[in-house]
Amino acid sequence: MTHEVAVVPGDGIGREVVPAAVDVLATVDAPIEFVHAEAGDETKAEQGVALPEETRETVADADATLFGAAGETAADVILPLRSVVGSYANVRPVCAYPGTDARAPETDLAFVRENTEGVYSGIESELTDGVRTLTRVVTAAASKAIADFGFEYADTNGYEQVTVAHKANVMRETDGLFLDIVEDVAEQRGAAYDTALMDALAMELVMQPEAYGVVICPNLAGDVLSDLAAGLVGGLGLLPSANIGDENALFEPVHGTAPTIAGDGVANPAATILSAALLLEHIGYESDAQRVREAVEGVLAEGPRTPDLGGTASTAMVRDAVVDRLS
Amino acid sequence: MTHEVAVVPGDGIGREVVPAAVDVLATVDAPIEFVHAEAGDETKAEQGVALPEETRETVADADATLFGAAGETAADVILPLRSVVGSYANVRPVCAYPGTDARAPETDLAFVRENTEGVYSGIESELTDGVRTLTRVVTAAASKAIADFGFEYADTNGYEQVTVAHKANVMRETDGLFLDIVEDVAEQRGAAYDTALMDALAMELVMQPEAYGVVICPNLAGDVLSDLAAGLVGGLGLLPSANIGDENALFEPVHGTAPTIAGDGVANPAATILSAALLLEHIGYESDAQRVREAVEGVLAEGPRTPDLGGTASTAMVRDAVVDRLS
Ligand SMILES: CC(C)[C@H](C(=O)O)[C@@H](O)C(=O)O
Ligand SMILES: CC(C)[C@H](C(=O)O)[C@@H](O)C(=O)O
Repeated sequence: MTHEVAVVPGDGIGREVVPAAVDVLATVDAPIEFVHAEAGDETKAEQGVALPEETRETVADADATLFGAAGETAADVILPLRSVVGSYANVRPVCAYPGTDARAPETDLAFVRENTEGVYSGIESELTDGVRTLTRVVTAAASKAIADFGFEYADTNGYEQVTVAHKANVMRETDGLFLDIVEDVAEQRGAAYDTALMDALAMELVMQPEAYGVVICPNLAGDVLSDLAAGLVGGLGLLPSANIGDENALFEPVHGTAPTIAGDGVANPAATILSAALLLEHIGYESDAQRVREAVEGVLAEGPRTPDLGGTASTAMVRDAVVDRLS
Repeated sequence: MTHEVAVVPGDGIGREVVPAAVDVLATVDAPIEFVHAEAGDETKAEQGVALPEETRETVADADATLFGAAGETAADVILPLRSVVGSYANVRPVCAYPGTDARAPETDLAFVRENTEGVYSGIESELTDGVRTLTRVVTAAASKAIADFGFEYADTNGYEQVTVAHKANVMRETDGLFLDIVEDVAEQRGAAYDTALMDALAMELVMQPEAYGVVICPNLAGDVLSDLAAGLVGGLGLLPSANIGDENALFEPVHGTAPTIAGDGVANPAATILSAALLLEHIGYESDAQRVREAVEGVLAEGPRTPDLGGTASTAMVRDAVVDRLS
């Protein structure tokens, strides 16, 4: 059975790293058919919208999507796309990869971020001049979905520690509900877990990231804490992510468009290739996924390396080195 | 003119470090009259409420308050007290003090956190079973107040870098208003500044805290980012804070009640004494404040040190050492 994968490179280095990752996907056993689609700043300049209807449809119809990055229009592209694929869970593994200058090399975390609600509701009003509100939404249904996913993810990926981030001492009703539901799910599964106030957790993650494993978070907490953790392992450059839905999913590097190096052909494709590995895993090609991951780790450890890691290699050289390790 | 200072030790080590700081305040020139008041878990157990009306009144009538910490009831005590003193700005200087095991010893930051609104509004509802909302409030007035305060603080304290944290790409109307107002204030003052998405800033603060100075933040962003920064300098243990209003103010260590060591007489009083120094500065005793700060820094550098810093000294020994340096 052939899997249809939508490919949306977006802007900036997205246009360099996504094709490299597609080349890698083309060398593994998984039978994939690629469908290209456009979104982002350039698309907006050309077509007047950052996310054309046609792209929404291509992504909706595919089995999974590989996305690159978008510039100024990032929120106009990625937030609707997460919703198009019905993604309720945003998964961000944060580990120190070989060859990086990590502040905390022992970091091995996975953020499991609620991907549909919280302050991302989009419901804002101007009550009167100079007084505006945003409606933060928390539902039992979305809280249960992320909790189920998070504990399952911890089991499948061998994490013993699960921490639930929240701010229920201040957001008593909304994060109170989130916390209650996650605790119910844990109890039903007989799963061990800790809870942590998101502010205290920010401090603890800086001081002893090695003490944590899976972190289940409301939407904004996951956004901020996963970026914080990226800082511990040398930045966003190597981090992949998955936006998981029941019928569809979207995979993207955590980094952005890197405008200062875009077009130079030296962007590091590792995060996007690692995102492609998550995609392979998701569509059922575990062993291909594992091989791709090992190939990337091998190249990160032994080179060639792009300039962000102190090397002089091009995107194409890194791609070729990964492909070589796969043949 | 005698200044009336309300003293609210609260729970846990608050009952040890606050008296130590009061002893230090009693040795400087500033004419202070102390009025004691109770709040916190023990008060709740005894009187049924964590923050008795009498304590509110004592704090409201004083010129300034020195607060310790509260346990489970922290939010029930500190959030109303911030409002009793009319505090619109929460100031948290985060520097690596001598004698600490700081991950990033070059850190010299000051968070200027909006202290009245955002997700701290307290407006929550259950729309239907399993669907709850919180109303995040952002006003032009509070945004202007924190911006004025933040830029003034940067000038007075010699910070060249001012960064405005926000998440206006997602919270377009609310953080959009906050950002517009802060930018207007900067322009009117001719002040230089940068803006940063709070997620990206979390990563940057971990990777290069030395590149930042004053960080002006919405309420929750300030809560999380200042705790993150505390992690860079070895934790909350030594950090003071100020809750500033127009007519009144409250000063508190950033740490909590430390239940595991409470009652042992070995809590480090440095953060509370440094908070008392901020209080002295606020009521107009700059040079006393400076002397207290230097005395604390001298003791941190040369000892005696409490167990949290690897020493064996008691709270009283550290207090005495600070008092000795002041005489
Ligand atoms: C671009 C932005 C809307 C997005 C988010 O806030 O989710 C980004 O920060 C991320 O984490 O993928
Ligand atoms: C105790 C809690 C309500 C408080 C806050 O969120 O402001 C604390 O985290 C702080 O930063 O002082």
